[in-house]
This record gives sequence, C-alpha cells and structure tokens, in this order.
Amino acid sequence: IGAMIYSMATEEPTKLDTPSIAERDALQKRESGVSENSPMRLRMEEFIKEQQKEIVAELEKVDGKKFQVDTWTRENGGGGISSVLQDGNVFEKAGVNISIVYGTLPRAAIEKMRVHHKAIDPDIQSLEFFAAGLSMVLHPINPMAPTVHLNYRYFETANTDGTSNAWWFGGGTDLTPSYLFDEDAIHFHKTIKDACDKHDKAYYPRFKKWCDEYFVNKHRGEARGIGGIFFDDLDEQEKDQENTFAFAQSGLKAFLPSYIPIIMKRKDMPYTEKEKQWQQIRRGRYVEFNLVHDRGTAFGLNTPSARVEAILMSLPLTASWRYMFEPEKGSREQRLVDVLREPREWV
Amino acid sequence: IGAMIYSMATEEPTKLDTPSIAERDALQKRESGVSENSPMRLRMEEFIKEQQKEIVAELEKVDGKKFQVDTWTRENGGGGISSVLQDGNVFEKAGVNISIVYGTLPRAAIEKMRVHHKAIDPDIQSLEFFAAGLSMVLHPINPMAPTVHLNYRYFETANTDGTSNAWWFGGGTDLTPSYLFDEDAIHFHKTIKDACDKHDKAYYPRFKKWCDEYFVNKHRGEARGIGGIFFDDLDEQEKDQENTFAFAQSGLKAFLPSYIPIIMKRKDMPYTEKEKQWQQIRRGRYVEFNLVHDRGTAFGLNTPSARVEAILMSLPLTASWRYMFEPEKGSREQRLVDVLREPREWV
Repeated sequence: IGAMIYSMATEEPTKLDTPSIAERDALQKRESGVSENSPMRLRMEEFIKEQQKEIVAELEKVDGKKFQVDTWTRENGGGGISSVLQDGNVFEKAGVNISIVYGTLPRAAIEKMRVHHKAIDPDIQSLEFFAAGLSMVLHPINPMAPTVHLNYRYFETANTDGTSNAWWFGGGTDLTPSYLFDEDAIHFHKTIKDACDKHDKAYYPRFKKWCDEYFVNKHRGEARGIGGIFFDDLDEQEKDQENTFAFAQSGLKAFLPSYIPIIMKRKDMPYTEKEKQWQQIRRGRYVEFNLVHDRGTAFGLNTPSARVEAILMSLPLTASWRYMFEPEKGSREQRLVDVLREPREWV
Repeated sequence: IGAMIYSMATEEPTKLDTPSIAERDALQKRESGVSENSPMRLRMEEFIKEQQKEIVAELEKVDGKKFQVDTWTRENGGGGISSVLQDGNVFEKAGVNISIVYGTLPRAAIEKMRVHHKAIDPDIQSLEFFAAGLSMVLHPINPMAPTVHLNYRYFETANTDGTSNAWWFGGGTDLTPSYLFDEDAIHFHKTIKDACDKHDKAYYPRFKKWCDEYFVNKHRGEARGIGGIFFDDLDEQEKDQENTFAFAQSGLKAFLPSYIPIIMKRKDMPYTEKEKQWQQIRRGRYVEFNLVHDRGTAFGLNTPSARVEAILMSLPLTASWRYMFEPEKGSREQRLVDVLREPREWV
C-alpha cells in the first residue's frame, strides 16, 4: 500500500507560471519553519519524520543493532528516508520508511481518484499532487513473535493556482503471527481500539472490518494475519482536516504501545526447528499476499522507474513453500489457520 | 502457465443430448485403447503420461530419492498426476505434473480465445473443451546447478455434435541459473534448437525470442533466466495437427538430454555459504516473476476452487529477499545480472 505514494509521480510536473506546491513549501519551510498554522503537507511531513525517529530508536533498543539509513531526494521536490535493519538480534528484517512526493497525476489516475474525491475537477488534464507517508514492516526472527505492518499516509491535490484542492488520509496496522497468543491479539486490538475510540466510536469496528476484508489471500481462503485496522480516503466528507489528522496521529502513536510489549514477551522464547519451518511457510503466505493481492505493490511494480527495493522492503528475509504441507489436527499451527479462515472479534 | 489448464474448467459441463467428449473418450479408451488413429486428445494424454514416467524415473536416478505421487480425478472427466520430490539429495523441490481437463468454457474465455483461433464460433454461448499438459519445475540444492522449467500442452474445443473444432499446442522450456556456465547455456539451447530444427528452421529463433520477451521481471528490467523457447497457439494456420504434435513431442523429448548432463556436472560442485545466499536471492526473483507477472499463475490463483498447491508447486522450497543487495563489480554474480539484462544468442 505504501508503494502507491512512491510510484505515483510518474510524470514530471508541468512547468506553471505560478510556483508549484513543492516550491511554495520549500520557501515556507526556509522562511518560517513548520508550525500549527503551516499547510497540512508540512505538518504531516514533520510528524512522520518525528515518528520514524522515535520508532527506529525504540526498535534499536529492542534489537541491539542499528538501522541502515538511506536518504534520497526527488528532483522536483520531496524525497524519503529508508531505515532498514537486517540480520538483527531480534529482527530478521525491519523497515521503517517515509516518503514525501510532489508530482503530477496523469488523466487516468485523476479519474480513479474522482470516484472517492468529488472535489477534483473532472475536466482537468493533469493535476499537481502531494503524498507523504510512513510505511513499516517488521519480521522478527523468533517464530513466537508476530510480524507487524503499519502505514499512515496523507494525500493532497492542488488547484492550478497552487492552493489545496482535495485531501485525504489513509492508513492502518495489522499483526501476522505464526503462532497465535490470544493475549497478544487482544492487546494489539485493544490498544488500537483505544486510539480510535478517542476520535470516533464507529472507527474501530468499521476499520477493523475493512482490514479483515482487505488482507486476505483469496486464493487460499485465509486472512494474512489476525488483522488490526485499515482505512482509506478519509476526507472532509467525514470530518474536518484537523480532526482527521489528530486521528491519524493517534493511530501512528499507538504503534509502539501496541507492539513493543508483544515483541518483548516473545523475542527470547524457546522454539524448535519445526516451529521455525512453520514460520517460514507463513512467511511464504505473506509474500503471496504482497505480490499477488496487494494493490499498492502491484501498482508500484508496474510503474516504470519505481524504487523496487523500497516497495519490496515489505518482503521477509526468508520464506518457504512446502508442497501440500498440512498442520496436524488439533495442533497450534492448525489453530492459527482456523482463526485465519474466520476472523475473530478480539475486544 | 501450466496453471491455465488446471483452472479453466470453472463451469460444470452443460448436459447435452449428444455424449460429451469426455464420455466419448472414456468409451473409446475402454473399447479400443489408444492408437495412432485415436483422437489427438487421447494421443496427447498417453504421450504426456509416458513422458512423466520416463522423466520421473530419470530424475529419481539422479537424486536417489523417490517422488511423492498424488493422483486426482475430476468429477466430469479427466484428472491429473502430481509427482513431487522435496528435500531430495540433489533437488530442493522438483515437480513433474500432468493434468487432463474436460470442461466447458464460459463466454468471456471464448471471446479471448477467438483472437487467436478463428475456427471458434463467435455466437456460441458455451463451449466444451479439452486440455492436457505436462508442467515441470526443478529447483536443485546446489547453487551451481540451474533451475529448469518446462511445459507442453494441448488444447481443443468441441462442436456441439462432439466433433473437434479448434485445437492448438503450446509449450516451451527455459533455464534459470544462479551461476552462469556458458557451456551449460550453450548445451541447453543447442539441444532445444536441434529439436526445433528437425521440424522448422524458423521455430528456434522465433520461439527463443518469444521466451526472452515473456519471462521478464519487468519491474527489475531483467529476465528470469537465460531463456530457452516459448510458444503458444500453434494451430492449423501454421501446420497440420500431425506435424505440430510431432514438434511438441520432439520438444518434450529433448528435455532429458538438455538438462541431465548439466545437473550431473553441477550437482556435486563445492560451494560457499555466500553462493548459497546468492541462489536464495535469485530464488526470490523466481517467486517475483511467478507471482507478479506469470499470466497462468495469476489466472489460476484468481479462479475459485483452483488447486492452489498444484499451481504453486513451481515456487522454490526456500527464497530470500535481502534489502539493496548488490553483487560486487566484476563478480560472477554481477556477470549473471548483466546477461539477464541483455539476453544473448547462445547458438
């Protein structure tokens, strides 16, 4: 999903008489910094940068190894920071990436967006846009410790005079265990639900369902994991920008309390070679979802000159496909599969 | 690609007043066996069954372990035999599968087929069809030994009176090394070229190019492997059925001489942990092609009640994704990547 924002900017921005939003934003940052009165673009950028630092720092404490940080800039404004930890003590592979994209949307993309965002002019030929997001996938070594995925993003289109046109937030987080500990599932869902409830009591049930429906390996009739929340296209038709930003902030800030207690409990648990193999098979399912069903990944990979390594950072370091593997009846492995076939209510 | 034939039969055959081709074929086999005068359906079925036995027997000699054989039948005629060897001495995973499908094509599939096969009635609402194919993927343990893929298939549609309507052959084979030995590439291509040349001197160059264009990880700008041949829709517009069957037979029979000398030379070569890791990364690319770009796999996985395990038998037992991995300049790993970026003429 996060891949969308890396790869949307396939066309170079059209040269306009008025300054582009990238130019405006650069100027404003230089002259007056970022405050509560700044455009949402700059506030979201600042927020995800802070969050990336905080999350990376916490994960380094958990792992004991440092992330490799790659910073890249885009020619026409924006850029990103990829933080990846590979072959750690706790994490097999952990990626926490942010990206800021200024670009121009082609006609086909505009038409798709109008389905959800009527503020976009139907007759316009091309459209300046801004996207900022934080994407994270953590694959722990220990099969008792679950994989987690998170993505929060902000999208905006600009009028030809450079003022803001349509905007929306999207995001979510979900947990993918190889061995299911009910207490972990409950803790994860409860932490997210609490973050949602502060803003709208309807959010958690609605976005939990959306998550259960989206992260499914349809060809196997099973969910990728035990869910969490997922939402997209949250715009002014629901709530004002300030409230929606506050919700996205709560969601992203809930990550550390939702996951750190789980990883601390599981990272040093004993496990057998057989349990490690089961984890590898579940990793294979993760790859299947991301490569076969995830819209963002597909979109990204089909975009010329996409940053393939950033898009595929979500894949595990190792995975396995074992022909006709069937868990034993009544086993813990079978119990996980049963839950993946029929999503539960955890809180 | 082989997945197509597993999954085409999504609709139950319509009950007709005349016997279905499945019923006719079953009757004929019972009453008079299969001879050169039998319908092509029965001859192709017999041919791929023989070939599967012969190939499995040879591969068991190479590996020293036995294949696991699963036989399945379809309710309305047809069935298959999956032969899989996993955790062998030489092969990490080796699958040699055949399938025979009798079914009815829905309207949408008929329209797609008419693009290539004008013999199909444009106004027909549904169409009985037959498909038979042999699919094989071998993933050796030793990183010096290449992965090989092969698929040969025959397709036929029936008139409402049960007589044969359109027919065509498709197939090919291609080699995917992690470490490139020019002599292996030359031997593989030369053996296939010889098989092609016996039938039509234009086949090898034409089908080699088709292969180079099809097996490409477009998102990475590199071929899956060093190619071979690939063809589809070979029908009466090219040559008669007898000649085309003879060509498909030569192609499939060329497999053992094309691959056995290579695996014998490479299976016991010494290798380092680093070389094994490179193989795992190349395996990851194999997974990417099969899950992201292969039309047969996508089609299969998106078909309700597909035999997922048979379709995904092509995936390696183990694979790896290492963030931003770059081979050293001038290394053997880099040389492979260079060749994958620009396909060579090997003979």
